[in-house]
Amino acid sequence: MILNDTIVALATPSGAGAIAVIRVSGPESITIVAPLFNSKGSKDLEEQASHTLHLGNIIDGERIVDEVLVSIFHNPKSYTGENTIEISCHGSQYIQQEIIQLLIRKGCRSAEAGEFTLRAFLNGKMDLSQAEAVADLISSENAASHQMAMQQMRGGFSNEIQKLRQELLNFASLIELELDFAEEDVEFANRDEFKSLVARIQKVLKKLIDSFAVGNVLKNGIPVAIVGEPNVGKSTLLNALLNEERAIVSEIAGTTRDTIEDEISIGGIGFRFIDTAGIRETQDVIEGLGIKKTFEKINQAQVVIYLLSADKLGHVELVSVSQESETLKPVQSDVTFTKNIQVELQKIHNQFPQKPLLIIVNKVDILESSALKKLQQELEVISSGVEKSQYLMLSAKTGMGVEELQQKLLQFVNTGELRNNNTIVTNSRHYNALLSALEEINKVQQGLNDNLSGDLMAIDIRQALYHFGEITGEITNDDLLGNIFANFCIGK
Amino acid sequence: MILNDTIVALATPSGAGAIAVIRVSGPESITIVAPLFNSKGSKDLEEQASHTLHLGNIIDGERIVDEVLVSIFHNPKSYTGENTIEISCHGSQYIQQEIIQLLIRKGCRSAEAGEFTLRAFLNGKMDLSQAEAVADLISSENAASHQMAMQQMRGGFSNEIQKLRQELLNFASLIELELDFAEEDVEFANRDEFKSLVARIQKVLKKLIDSFAVGNVLKNGIPVAIVGEPNVGKSTLLNALLNEERAIVSEIAGTTRDTIEDEISIGGIGFRFIDTAGIRETQDVIEGLGIKKTFEKINQAQVVIYLLSADKLGHVELVSVSQESETLKPVQSDVTFTKNIQVELQKIHNQFPQKPLLIIVNKVDILESSALKKLQQELEVISSGVEKSQYLMLSAKTGMGVEELQQKLLQFVNTGELRNNNTIVTNSRHYNALLSALEEINKVQQGLNDNLSGDLMAIDIRQALYHFGEITGEITNDDLLGNIFANFCIGK
Repeated sequence: MILNDTIVALATPSGAGAIAVIRVSGPESITIVAPLFNSKGSKDLEEQASHTLHLGNIIDGERIVDEVLVSIFHNPKSYTGENTIEISCHGSQYIQQEIIQLLIRKGCRSAEAGEFTLRAFLNGKMDLSQAEAVADLISSENAASHQMAMQQMRGGFSNEIQKLRQELLNFASLIELELDFAEEDVEFANRDEFKSLVARIQKVLKKLIDSFAVGNVLKNGIPVAIVGEPNVGKSTLLNALLNEERAIVSEIAGTTRDTIEDEISIGGIGFRFIDTAGIRETQDVIEGLGIKKTFEKINQAQVVIYLLSADKLGHVELVSVSQESETLKPVQSDVTFTKNIQVELQKIHNQFPQKPLLIIVNKVDILESSALKKLQQELEVISSGVEKSQYLMLSAKTGMGVEELQQKLLQFVNTGELRNNNTIVTNSRHYNALLSALEEINKVQQGLNDNLSGDLMAIDIRQALYHFGEITGEITNDDLLGNIFANFCIGK
Repeated sequence: MILNDTIVALATPSGAGAIAVIRVSGPESITIVAPLFNSKGSKDLEEQASHTLHLGNIIDGERIVDEVLVSIFHNPKSYTGENTIEISCHGSQYIQQEIIQLLIRKGCRSAEAGEFTLRAFLNGKMDLSQAEAVADLISSENAASHQMAMQQMRGGFSNEIQKLRQELLNFASLIELELDFAEEDVEFANRDEFKSLVARIQKVLKKLIDSFAVGNVLKNGIPVAIVGEPNVGKSTLLNALLNEERAIVSEIAGTTRDTIEDEISIGGIGFRFIDTAGIRETQDVIEGLGIKKTFEKINQAQVVIYLLSADKLGHVELVSVSQESETLKPVQSDVTFTKNIQVELQKIHNQFPQKPLLIIVNKVDILESSALKKLQQELEVISSGVEKSQYLMLSAKTGMGVEELQQKLLQFVNTGELRNNNTIVTNSRHYNALLSALEEINKVQQGLNDNLSGDLMAIDIRQALYHFGEITGEITNDDLLGNIFANFCIGK
């Protein structure tokens, strides 16, 4: 890893905008930029104080490339801990490229993905888990993932881990000291205190490991399978849910409404909706494959929505169209309808007994009040027949039931931990390190109980310390760092 | 137009990136941001000096929204001339929106398109033509349009116009003074000096008006029609031209190579290539319509490329495939081939006698040297038969002739004016104002020659002054400003 050169990259999103920011970091950053910058003030850039802003022109020989604002940060008071220059130029892509290419000609190197943050880590500006949180923060798209990334970036559980690691390290030193005096049979490390520390560490590790399930779901969005025939109104349903948060979502470039598989933020939590075909009983081989696929998708989900449409219930002869009023009326109590649905739901429940099931009938605005009442009775019967199922009548058109659906979805999420500002582990690398650390700590505990000799115990403690260090980056290697920072965007 | 409120907008391109910049401008900008900013330093934001940078957290009550860098600019030393804050936050779109919405809740208003630059104009930080150049600068995609926008932003011709306007204004005042002393028949304004000023103004206006043709072409790219059957290698040709500048072009998001209608920067000048079908003689009504369309497209172009492919010349029996060597050989001198092409070229030339014609034969690498020689003789004959035509043998594959083509294309552009740093008018609003000003100045000249009375002459002078003022923005109205700034992006 080369750290003694000066790197440059566009830090703002690519594309044309009012302004763009080009970031330069490294020992030579100020010396490289200074001769290219013709300040409106009189002083040379090299004489300017840290954390100051300067208006002037970027010049390439005689040619003025752009009028820019230059920010100066002196080592170590910068993001990377190195001398850093940020050039805020006009947002034309041509100008961005001209300035970056000029800087490269004058001795900068194009930064790799995440290299600014890598340098911040290597220069001790943040630990590894904090650096990883920066990438999470940039990609956060809802309140929950944002809050978790912020917490991790501000120290989060790595502070806790680091404190425990220090205590464990103290004990390790004492036990290793005992080895030097093995013949005298002294105990520098108080075994009772040590046992209580190990118990504390186990408790913390278990809590953090348990939080991963929540964290993972909150970070990546809660998967919700929508089971329903085509044309029962899947996208209408999503649009109705989306309406409430359109202000934020519509701003996100690339959010297409083409596909039903979409992520929607509800109450700050991301929900990932997974489209599935229905699961009607069939003898057809091809349809049978379809059902298998539906079950596979339900398997990925945490919640299952079973979607029906009021205007499609006619197919099962619960209701029929009244030509005059254009509303739907029930014609008879239809045992087949109820049975069919119950059979399908039961089939889903049998396969996935833990997953909550939500039966939703959309487009109920077209039903007359008597039909609505009838439908509710039927749904009551159906849902009471299948464990873990609830029902909801909804009209995406009038908005009826939409808020209730949002509330129900949020209930499925255990957001207590998030609300209580508890530490939540979201990173699978951390999760694995915590699991390994717990395994080693359990061995240490076993050793304590078995009055294992100090030299053997010291090995287990060292192993546990190693896994703690992996999280905060005290123990690391180039491959690991390469993997972590390759997932960053360039310019960060 | 409201100027006493505080506006906010995202200044960087939308989308996720390492960082994003949110711009706040207006009298309350610092007072609004200060309580939302928890500085790592001790001092309150309101006590900080202009042009300084501060690290801290944006807070919404208890909640930390993001760790940010805040830049402060005190009125009048800012882009807008108002108190301005720039918040550099993490590039997550969620965070961008959270901060902007927080600022709006605390009293900011969402900025309209171009409103920051509008305020800069209204606060006297730049004149109107300079403000317009900012938008040109942001959308500039090649060296020529960039250079013209930079020149205009640095004052460009508005300095020249303003100087002449001042001189004209002095004469106008003197002539109007004469009116007060009409009975005494004095002449405060020296008529000879005035005539020479009018002549100077006419010369400048004519020069600027003439530059518009060049400026317009350089700003929008030079349109080049490619006339050729499908599969003669149009996109190969463009790719070959593109290769030389790939570094820049490939960085521009949204540049798709799907369509042949594309803009390519050659030697810093943008060329817009327009795809057309061929124009073979036909009795078919539908094909006849195709030819009409081809002519319409040629009409938009400044240069016409007539493209042939060496491996398609077989169709007209100039060459045939030699099975052993897989190269093409001429089988006979083909009079039909020559005639056909000459007829088509002549047809184009008759319709558009001013447009240069460039006959290009692509894929000549597949020809044996004797065939190549033969082809050259044929092309010599063809091009000498049609006025304003040249020919070029090219291989996009080996690169042969590509540079020559680029040189030829650049020769079609009169870049002398640009190179000599002459002022070039690119804005059609300016062009129209210059035309109107010249019309009025011509009337003034006529009046001087006819010894017209001072009061009548004063009216024409005032009219000319009005049109000068339109360019620099000394004379303006809300509608005009609205139109100009509506074309800006939001955040500038």
